[in-house]
Amino acid sequence: MRAITLGDLEDLALGAVVLGTGGGGDPYLAKVMLAQALERHGPVPLVDAADLDPEGLLLPVAMVGAPTVEKFPNGGEASRVLGALEAHLGRRGIAVLPIEIGGMNTLFPVAVAAELGLPCVDADAMRRAFPQIEMTLLTLAGISASPITLCDAKGNYVLFDAVDNVMCERLVRACTTEMGMTAVMSAYPITARQCVESAVTGSLTYCLEIGRRIRAIQEGRAGAYEAFLSYCDARILFTGKVVDLDRRTTAGWARGTVSLEHLDEPARVMRVEIQNENLAAFEDGEAKATVPDLLTFLDIETGVPMTTEGLAYGQRLHLVAMPAHERWRTEEGVALAGPRAFGYDVDYVPFEVAR
Amino acid sequence: MRAITLGDLEDLALGAVVLGTGGGGDPYLAKVMLAQALERHGPVPLVDAADLDPEGLLLPVAMVGAPTVEKFPNGGEASRVLGALEAHLGRRGIAVLPIEIGGMNTLFPVAVAAELGLPCVDADAMRRAFPQIEMTLLTLAGISASPITLCDAKGNYVLFDAVDNVMCERLVRACTTEMGMTAVMSAYPITARQCVESAVTGSLTYCLEIGRRIRAIQEGRAGAYEAFLSYCDARILFTGKVVDLDRRTTAGWARGTVSLEHLDEPARVMRVEIQNENLAAFEDGEAKATVPDLLTFLDIETGVPMTTEGLAYGQRLHLVAMPAHERWRTEEGVALAGPRAFGYDVDYVPFEVAR
Repeated sequence: MRAITLGDLEDLALGAVVLGTGGGGDPYLAKVMLAQALERHGPVPLVDAADLDPEGLLLPVAMVGAPTVEKFPNGGEASRVLGALEAHLGRRGIAVLPIEIGGMNTLFPVAVAAELGLPCVDADAMRRAFPQIEMTLLTLAGISASPITLCDAKGNYVLFDAVDNVMCERLVRACTTEMGMTAVMSAYPITARQCVESAVTGSLTYCLEIGRRIRAIQEGRAGAYEAFLSYCDARILFTGKVVDLDRRTTAGWARGTVSLEHLDEPARVMRVEIQNENLAAFEDGEAKATVPDLLTFLDIETGVPMTTEGLAYGQRLHLVAMPAHERWRTEEGVALAGPRAFGYDVDYVPFEVAR
Repeated sequence: MRAITLGDLEDLALGAVVLGTGGGGDPYLAKVMLAQALERHGPVPLVDAADLDPEGLLLPVAMVGAPTVEKFPNGGEASRVLGALEAHLGRRGIAVLPIEIGGMNTLFPVAVAAELGLPCVDADAMRRAFPQIEMTLLTLAGISASPITLCDAKGNYVLFDAVDNVMCERLVRACTTEMGMTAVMSAYPITARQCVESAVTGSLTYCLEIGRRIRAIQEGRAGAYEAFLSYCDARILFTGKVVDLDRRTTAGWARGTVSLEHLDEPARVMRVEIQNENLAAFEDGEAKATVPDLLTFLDIETGVPMTTEGLAYGQRLHLVAMPAHERWRTEEGVALAGPRAFGYDVDYVPFEVAR
């Protein structure tokens, strides 16, 4: 049986930063939390949804709020939201399910599974991180995010049953703001069968494998960059130095813009727009890569993947583009989480074919 | 047995505007709704909490949002929030309870009682209207507003269990804003015993009696003004003409200021500050009356009580001050709903003794 152990922690966190595409926060706190949970409760079994009772209820869990906020769940929130969900549905869950893979929300569900003594499903609803609750492949499959349970560290608890997943996002965001921008949520309660049919299977394994390949880069192994890029079907879109950086937290979002000057051709400048995650890269006003595809910065010397908060003037970075899951690249997927869904007046073009 | 009948409608609505102190919206829509409910289901029994099973659950209900919004519940919301409350608590309610007496929230619970085939309790939690959920005599008695259930006309539903009643207000307000500023809420689920001990009994009767006396003014009966003022221990604080009027809806509140020039002494100007309700009256910068006491405008010719929305330049009005329930006039009551609770840097002074 596969399991997440203390030995996986570093790779999981590295992969989480890559798939977090700048968002999801610094996984340092989540690493500490997961390390403590694994030390206390032992390894967390990693299971495939296909091997579970098809009608068994999965318990999805995630942190919501602005990733720049430094508060961290005290441990009681997850068991409360999941216990409340079980009580509301009148049934017990059989495994914990990550909602997104990226940033803290990769490691957090594993820690929750350790504490609840449940396995963690090797799956998620995005195979990346996205800043809004409705932006999942489950929404594309017509699955409701409701009922949603939400609670904060002070013990405030809210249950939502909204008519659509966009309204879920609006109501949860409004309450999370009142809660001080950090809360724990359960959303999209689905069965193992729905997970197999409509979520992404193998996400944690994918994240771990990316982390291993990033570590190989950091260890200076020959061909490590190529091995990483090849595994993700990724491409280095631009290599440059940070020459401009504008970050601000507004209305619950970490927004910003970062501009890089090309290392070899200083006249070339790449501008990346950020809303929690890296959303779109423009050169000469032309979109070179956009959501739903993934955009991640890696330090060209150390291979360290950068969160938005980690960006600094003068850093020399690769901008890496990775294809989103194939269901994101459909017309419906692009409508839900493409550039126009974030307010950019550009069409989505797969980065491999962008001019 | 007492009952609310179609014949009570006009008086109930008139009293509701007086006790609404400018807020709570135009009761015209609520009158139409209640008339339809009474025609369809017959009179609504009006019961004293003291005559009910002391451990019986009461079902409090109110509309929340900005009273200037014109949407009205379609009827399904109240049964949904109350049904959800009953399911959450695992018990059935025995009667509907108004949360506030004033504006639409006086008539609305009676219509809900008619539709559910339940009696309505002759009580409320304020004996007036207040704009924030925590501003009740139940809060003063240490009773939690949670669990709260909330739903809108589209079918979006939220349940709140917050650690204090101020947080209840913040979370409900945030969700109501996302719902388009009109929603139906159940809060403060209490037993008949708690109602007797900590709410205000006789509120609907009080409201009806005020309405009857206002109607007597409108009918031009001799001594009618004195009979109304005497019944409420009220006083005409100022009689003047509207010379300035500023109203705006911001952040979910109907805010405003209205200034009156004295009819006999034009140098005297009274300024009334509004936040949904009339909150404080100032002359020469001196507070003459403030919350928690009640401030209501009556047309000096017709006796018509004015909502904030009904105010207009040139109207000739009496500004009437009425004492709040005695528990509001305690130190704790003033701390919860006195002028400083609304951001005015003045002490509360009972209007009878204000200079």
